[in-house]
Amino acid sequence: MASSWDEMTMSFSRLSMFPFFDIAHYLVSVMALKRQPGAAAVAWQNPISSWFTAMLHCFGGGILSSLLLAEPPLRFLTNNTNILLASAIWYIVFFCPCDLVSQGYSFLPVQLLAAGMKEVTRTWKIVGGVTHANSHYKNGWLVMIAIGWARGAGGSIITNFELLVKGDWKPQADEWMKMSYPAKVTLLGSIIFTLQHTEHLLISRHDLVFLYTMFLVVTKIIMMTTATPILPFAPFEATISRILFGWQQQFLPCEKKSEISTSTSKSTAVISDKAKKKGNKKTD
Amino acid sequence: MASSWDEMTMSFSRLSMFPFFDIAHYLVSVMALKRQPGAAAVAWQNPISSWFTAMLHCFGGGILSSLLLAEPPLRFLTNNTNILLASAIWYIVFFCPCDLVSQGYSFLPVQLLAAGMKEVTRTWKIVGGVTHANSHYKNGWLVMIAIGWARGAGGSIITNFELLVKGDWKPQADEWMKMSYPAKVTLLGSIIFTLQHTEHLLISRHDLVFLYTMFLVVTKIIMMTTATPILPFAPFEATISRILFGWQQQFLPCEKKSEISTSTSKSTAVISDKAKKKGNKKTD
Amino acid sequence: MASSWDEMTMSFSRLSMFPFFDIAHYLVSVMALKRQPGAAAVAWQNPISSWFTAMLHCFGGGILSSLLLAEPPLRFLTNNTNILLASAIWYIVFFCPCDLVSQGYSFLPVQLLAAGMKEVTRTWKIVGGVTHANSHYKNGWLVMIAIGWARGAGGSIITNFELLVKGDWKPQADEWMKMSYPAKVTLLGSIIFTLQHTEHLLISRHDLVFLYTMFLVVTKIIMMTTATPILPFAPFEATISRILFGWQQQFLPCEKKSEISTSTSKSTAVISDKAKKKGNKKTD
Repeated sequence: MASSWDEMTMSFSRLSMFPFFDIAHYLVSVMALKRQPGAAAVAWQNPISSWFTAMLHCFGGGILSSLLLAEPPLRFLTNNTNILLASAIWYIVFFCPCDLVSQGYSFLPVQLLAAGMKEVTRTWKIVGGVTHANSHYKNGWLVMIAIGWARGAGGSIITNFELLVKGDWKPQADEWMKMSYPAKVTLLGSIIFTLQHTEHLLISRHDLVFLYTMFLVVTKIIMMTTATPILPFAPFEATISRILFGWQQQFLPCEKKSEISTSTSKSTAVISDKAKKKGNKKTD
Repeated sequence: MASSWDEMTMSFSRLSMFPFFDIAHYLVSVMALKRQPGAAAVAWQNPISSWFTAMLHCFGGGILSSLLLAEPPLRFLTNNTNILLASAIWYIVFFCPCDLVSQGYSFLPVQLLAAGMKEVTRTWKIVGGVTHANSHYKNGWLVMIAIGWARGAGGSIITNFELLVKGDWKPQADEWMKMSYPAKVTLLGSIIFTLQHTEHLLISRHDLVFLYTMFLVVTKIIMMTTATPILPFAPFEATISRILFGWQQQFLPCEKKSEISTSTSKSTAVISDKAKKKGNKKTD
Repeated sequence: MASSWDEMTMSFSRLSMFPFFDIAHYLVSVMALKRQPGAAAVAWQNPISSWFTAMLHCFGGGILSSLLLAEPPLRFLTNNTNILLASAIWYIVFFCPCDLVSQGYSFLPVQLLAAGMKEVTRTWKIVGGVTHANSHYKNGWLVMIAIGWARGAGGSIITNFELLVKGDWKPQADEWMKMSYPAKVTLLGSIIFTLQHTEHLLISRHDLVFLYTMFLVVTKIIMMTTATPILPFAPFEATISRILFGWQQQFLPCEKKSEISTSTSKSTAVISDKAKKKGNKKTD
């Protein structure tokens, strides 16, 4: 029983992302690009710019990780096979006759399958980032967490920056108030895998890979099918926040207590109103 | 006959850019900076900031290439001779009595000579970039194209970014619809020199350097004297675009064909109107 | 007498910044962050984002220096002790019961002590930057000045950039007209220490460290107690500016002299009006 579990998790952790999981990741990324207003027009008028933006969407996490470790950010261009695959998917998505790919992608089962496979690549990227950072900085656990996080969910930073430079994106200060779900779940994964790597968590790498991936895929599918922003760890978040950052409200003997609670509840109400108005978060 | 051609191209490819061609490049770059609104006032009030911006204009391509290859972007400051030369030209341009340099530069023959010599430096930068990238990444042809392009025409990215950070530039999304002429011609040169370097193009380096430079200089002079934005490869561009990105419009059997052609012609009309309103492109 | 002076300056130059001077620097930096509008709300809603911004405030100079030398900008995360210390100060400043730390910091003697100790760390950073740059680039005196400057006063560039990306800061073009006092004094220190390092200034390192630090601390305390923006080298600045950049106004024989003086006095009047309207400069 245990050995068949071990075999299953071991085989799972040895899966190669190329080509099917990579295809799913590129497809989801390029479709997210296509849905941006004006993206199809840019592809017609300036295909090179559109191709470049698509590459940033597909390889953004690795580019951010390279920038943080002072490695050449162009290194992703040396992996000719993956570049050709991503370029082919960009071409097919934007220039397919009758827009067949977009029509096919509009079916929910296709989206669920692609999103699920993309979540598998997220785990591989986090593990790759943690391992790579450890080869540079022994015991640099903060660096390992940061690089795992950058590789798993850093692509949106790169693509938002590109939009900022192009003038298509005006950052809103309150967007930074709440971290997106992909950012939260990738940070959690990065911390877990760093603890496992530094042997503070007594679980084998392949078991953790399997369990974390299953968690990612299941929660993603549930969130997509129910279409409500169920945050699976919202209760934990609230508890930890109250313990670490909210305890003073109970032990506050000074006369400012009522002022703080009033202003905090006001600002909380304002922010929760803003959060309700925000329907669609960008996927990552 | 062949040997005299060989000798001529060989001697040409061994020309040193220092000092005359470099002087021309710095002069054109600093004059482009001086024409920006408010640049003279900044030079009077904050000479250090003005000097720094002038250095970005003069060495921007090399800085971008260093950033992309994770080399220190400050490395250009170690080349004391070129820094002193560029600084001297900045000083003379901004602080010359009676603004003599700007008056001298307003004569068309002077502008043609300087622009022609600057185009020669463009070829040297592309070749330098391609060779440098190849020393880092054997067979990384995409990296070679990218670095050649960055060195030859990347300066405007660095200077636009500096303007963005200073608040002097609001990027317009439709500026990215059409690549500028320097960007296109540098990309073409970068691809050609990469193919020559990887021995896919059977022509010697010095012959290609000579022919490409003559092409650059002649087209630049024609464009400046006729003062119309003649794009020498507009017919080729249109043909390739139609082959790679427009073929589906002929083979589109689905009912969306009329919708697509209508929306495309609408967007094309809008974009061509915007293009006609844009008189002056920034020189690079 | 001389040997006791030597002993004093030698002991002073061997002071360790950890922990008391570093605590002062982190305290001043985090309090500057806390005074930004909305910072407390961000700390409550998204502590990770607030913690990251605080780390940028505390370590911004080193991060900029790493970026300029193509070293990993995440390297500061490997120094676990300093990161824990800075994080503890962030936590205490933002989440202390009754906001005790901010109340304690509002007393002028506390601010003077912390600001004075922070100025001591500035000298150490400049010296560290100059030495580090020299280890990379022998005789690269411009690089040494730049890195010393970046480490001593570059943090504001990093934090402004973070605000720009978050949408909280709209850069004003005329902010760049006048360099802030910390930027000027750090540039002066960087030049002096570079000249001393390249043996153009015949003074020992420890004597220079002592004298420069005393100059920084005394001027900073005077500026804070008198609360007027006395710039100790405004006369020198005006003289040098007139010599290097204003001489042509006296030797201008051409008819444009009156135009230039009119436009310059107009722009000077405009700029001095704007400078008077600016009350509070950001501290660094």
